[in-house]
Amino acid sequence: MTNASSDEVALIGLDWGTSSLRAYLMGCDGALLAERKLSLGVMRLEYSSTEQSRKQAFEAALKEACGDWLVSASDAPVIACGMVGSAQGWCEAPYLSTPIRLDQLSKHLTAIETDCGRVVLVVPGLMQKTELVSLMRGEETQLAGCMYAIPQRSLSTTILAGLPGTHSKWVTLEAGCIQHSETFMTGEVFDTLCRHTILGRTMQCGEHEPAAFDYGVRTALRHSTRGGVLSTIFTVRSLGLTGGLSAKAQPAYLSGLLIGEELAAVLRIYGGRGNATSIRPESFVLIGDHKLCCQYQRALHIIGHEAIGIIRDASSRGLWEIAIQAGLVSAGLVRKRVTC
Amino acid sequence: MTNASSDEVALIGLDWGTSSLRAYLMGCDGALLAERKLSLGVMRLEYSSTEQSRKQAFEAALKEACGDWLVSASDAPVIACGMVGSAQGWCEAPYLSTPIRLDQLSKHLTAIETDCGRVVLVVPGLMQKTELVSLMRGEETQLAGCMYAIPQRSLSTTILAGLPGTHSKWVTLEAGCIQHSETFMTGEVFDTLCRHTILGRTMQCGEHEPAAFDYGVRTALRHSTRGGVLSTIFTVRSLGLTGGLSAKAQPAYLSGLLIGEELAAVLRIYGGRGNATSIRPESFVLIGDHKLCCQYQRALHIIGHEAIGIIRDASSRGLWEIAIQAGLVSAGLVRKRVTC
Repeated sequence: MTNASSDEVALIGLDWGTSSLRAYLMGCDGALLAERKLSLGVMRLEYSSTEQSRKQAFEAALKEACGDWLVSASDAPVIACGMVGSAQGWCEAPYLSTPIRLDQLSKHLTAIETDCGRVVLVVPGLMQKTELVSLMRGEETQLAGCMYAIPQRSLSTTILAGLPGTHSKWVTLEAGCIQHSETFMTGEVFDTLCRHTILGRTMQCGEHEPAAFDYGVRTALRHSTRGGVLSTIFTVRSLGLTGGLSAKAQPAYLSGLLIGEELAAVLRIYGGRGNATSIRPESFVLIGDHKLCCQYQRALHIIGHEAIGIIRDASSRGLWEIAIQAGLVSAGLVRKRVTC
Repeated sequence: MTNASSDEVALIGLDWGTSSLRAYLMGCDGALLAERKLSLGVMRLEYSSTEQSRKQAFEAALKEACGDWLVSASDAPVIACGMVGSAQGWCEAPYLSTPIRLDQLSKHLTAIETDCGRVVLVVPGLMQKTELVSLMRGEETQLAGCMYAIPQRSLSTTILAGLPGTHSKWVTLEAGCIQHSETFMTGEVFDTLCRHTILGRTMQCGEHEPAAFDYGVRTALRHSTRGGVLSTIFTVRSLGLTGGLSAKAQPAYLSGLLIGEELAAVLRIYGGRGNATSIRPESFVLIGDHKLCCQYQRALHIIGHEAIGIIRDASSRGLWEIAIQAGLVSAGLVRKRVTC
């Protein structure tokens, strides 16, 4: 698919995050002609403290990711989202404040002029100025893609979108508007507990054990408003030492404890707003890495929320939507629905 | 003080934990003649997988810590507590089950014969076989020391003892009996978040900032049963990026968030048993590292529990008490009260 001729290509999209860089080659109808994933995330690039060195590192990463596309599709606009627009990125794309309509994103793109004469347009991040300030970069674009996937419902009901990952987000969408978001450091905490604490010492990695995951989720739900997660995570060790949990089961159990804790909090938060139980299953969606979304889906099933939809390709779809709204590309004749 | 003559020495005590080894030289009345702290904790010793290699590593550590005392006080019994008695230690001292009277500890000492012809007697650990299994090794000895410090009260009221640290414990004591314990991985989680996550990247270590600590405690208390700690810890970064928290203030703020979360859980747990608010200030005690206990004391003050007592030298006092009960030493004429 990488040999698509230049006249088929309408857009080059980049989801440029902390650890990875995904590049999308898109056709006139938004169809994904090619996709690449590279370990060239913002925090993985090496450069000195000078502005020149930083610029060169980003230029080189862009070239490595899609230099051939830039040549073959010389007229295609380039749009990017994620940490590339942060203070640690290529060029800071200022935050917009929430609540905000998703169609406002396209009006605030930040242009980066590259050495090869192309312009990379960067989607702004969002900031929620509540007591606990919440930030997002990249998720706003996935949410734009989510709206594309479920356009009818998105205009009439409240959607609760979960974006699990290193820093999971939970966002309410109302009538095309981002209302409220919460961040949970679930993914990064899981990773660091496994790698750098005593819990990792008795663990054995291998096949995911669903029963242990479920056990962790149930334990978290029972103890979330009792001892909480600082207490429950110690049971990875204590149950391990007393024969209640095998070494192989421990990673899945810990994952269940943390995801269960996050979901218990999500239900409390959005319940408190009169939304939680009133958010119907069809208004609950998960966006992101498919395997991880399936784990969240499984945990939500334990809680009693069955068959929660998973939206695929939300980043590329979101970049496409924003590009259309910005007038970079035309919508074309066919708008494919993303599987939900 | 290390030149105490052999006839003054009644006991050599070892508090041998995960990361450090503390050695105590005690006189006939339990007075501390000398104290040493070495980085020779159980997890820091290096040895191969053979039993012989492990034994040699522990023998060498013992010699380094107090080889001179063993020679000069050739008749003094040696008693040890902590991870030295764990499966990863020198010799496993089996767990006793809770609830248990503290005076039972002295009846279950495990003897290790050393190459130099001395016997090291190891205090057993405790196991609470509740749904979330709780374990302790070392804290049972500190609790024995605590009972010594407040003997009258300990026999008539319920005491809630907090032992903050890498893995904080909260224990209820009734009439000399350990009733219930909970473990929180607060210290280790703080350390690993600072060292190994994105939160550490914007932090600057330096003087402890009390105002930032208080801010963290208050934030944790407000959000403990809302988003919880997986959510609040992200604000170290989001408040940092938006100017709400200086780089220097971030470590203290994170510490406040985690200690506040732990204390909120403690009050829920022991409140649920009808004990929390009924546990009077004078029955609340803190045991362990003095600086850390002062931080917990400060956080408890914010919650509304004022002037919580801190018990010092609980490990050495506990080892002394257990040695007396085991008939290793005589109580002597004078029993000094520990400052509470």
